Amino acid sequence: MNTIYKKRSYLCVGLDTDITKIPQHLLNETDPVFEFNKSIIDATRDLCVSYKINTAFYEALGLKGWEAMEKTVRYIGEEHFRIADAKRGDIGNTSDQYAKAFFETLPFDAITVAPYMGEDSVKPFLQHQGKWAIVLGLTSNKGAFDFELEKMGEELLYERVLQKVSSWGDPGNLMFVIGATRADEFINIRKRTPEHFYLVPGVGAQGGSLKEISEKAMNSECGLLVNASRAVIYASASTDFAEKAREVAAEYQKEMASYL
Amino acid sequence: MNTIYKKRSYLCVGLDTDITKIPQHLLNETDPVFEFNKSIIDATRDLCVSYKINTAFYEALGLKGWEAMEKTVRYIGEEHFRIADAKRGDIGNTSDQYAKAFFETLPFDAITVAPYMGEDSVKPFLQHQGKWAIVLGLTSNKGAFDFELEKMGEELLYERVLQKVSSWGDPGNLMFVIGATRADEFINIRKRTPEHFYLVPGVGAQGGSLKEISEKAMNSECGLLVNASRAVIYASASTDFAEKAREVAAEYQKEMASYL
Repeated sequence: MNTIYKKRSYLCVGLDTDITKIPQHLLNETDPVFEFNKSIIDATRDLCVSYKINTAFYEALGLKGWEAMEKTVRYIGEEHFRIADAKRGDIGNTSDQYAKAFFETLPFDAITVAPYMGEDSVKPFLQHQGKWAIVLGLTSNKGAFDFELEKMGEELLYERVLQKVSSWGDPGNLMFVIGATRADEFINIRKRTPEHFYLVPGVGAQGGSLKEISEKAMNSECGLLVNASRAVIYASASTDFAEKAREVAAEYQKEMASYL
Repeated sequence: MNTIYKKRSYLCVGLDTDITKIPQHLLNETDPVFEFNKSIIDATRDLCVSYKINTAFYEALGLKGWEAMEKTVRYIGEEHFRIADAKRGDIGNTSDQYAKAFFETLPFDAITVAPYMGEDSVKPFLQHQGKWAIVLGLTSNKGAFDFELEKMGEELLYERVLQKVSSWGDPGNLMFVIGATRADEFINIRKRTPEHFYLVPGVGAQGGSLKEISEKAMNSECGLLVNASRAVIYASASTDFAEKAREVAAEYQKEMASYL
């Protein structure tokens, strides 16, 4: 995260690459998804500090998708923080295998993790030197009201998650997913976890405000990675898609610079 | 599930195939994991009604692992209920992609789903004709005490999950994961969800009792798929592994027949 102040950006570009939404002319390539990602990465590299690969879009294509994901994460390189947005989590021996998949077999720096199954499902992701688990705290979607925002004793479930999960790791190996659409909760969340970084999806297509998040939840080390996926990567459906993606990313970067 | 009474079995064999644990002589094969699975499947086909593929073990091997998974699920064929034990779940547009990955690109009949993110994260898995979401209810691991077994109002979190999630689907497209190590809770769980099937891991290596589960949670259509992974597939580490796997599976089947 040392690059945040150098680049004056805490932007994470989300590569939720949907083959049905990429420009037509790329479909003639051997690996259209990777070609698309390569162009997006080349066009945004200096404006963002992180890329987030949403594994679902790659798995949907089967073997070829998994291959495009592998090529993409290697193409990104070590200067960016590479997040597998994979929402994994299972009993200990299985989470171990997921950690191996994303931290050893593939060179990701972090993976998003679902907390429902508790400590032994999260811990294996915290035991890899220099790697991060990004655990779901309060998500950006409507379904957050079903369980996350329900009362558990004196707290809400997501507050209990922040509290318990914090005790399993530290800000050096643990972050939380906090949706940008939950700005009302941001001050409370920052009070409960003052030092952790948050991965914040939900800006752009989902309607969250970058300004509000930044004002309410930034800490002395920034503490935020704000993700934009669809707003950046689908800025244009034509041959100028990379150029337009750069323009949108540059707007985010400029706004971020003003908050840092 | 029509085959349960015909085969007198509600056994699901879990293909948690770990390349470091399979017999040495298979490592000379081009695809050792698939060769191992093929032998296990051939040896147990008539004794079980379902196979469960734990995606973590395949992802840990990268592209080659994903290929072994694809080959395995196709090799199983349509007569068995094919479960992707993948613990997926994300915002709606992303869960859609996961459903596509496992129900369309790959021919799985069911996928395990994490409930933390609520309704829009689960629903996409319920909208595929003839396919099932198997949502985490009460899991077999120690971490279940961290959140699942904590009080949420008058209930426990997992009870709230059973209640809410039941209203999003019906026993024709929805099952629950209920760990075999939670026998004390089984009567309560069956009362709350009388008609649903449960996928029950935790017998064998994790210590759950087949007898207790069967006595407490069987319903008039059986309502149980009891999974055994390590106890079956690693019954022997030698060239007789398939034979020994069959012996263990046959013991389970025989015991199951006595409860049906």
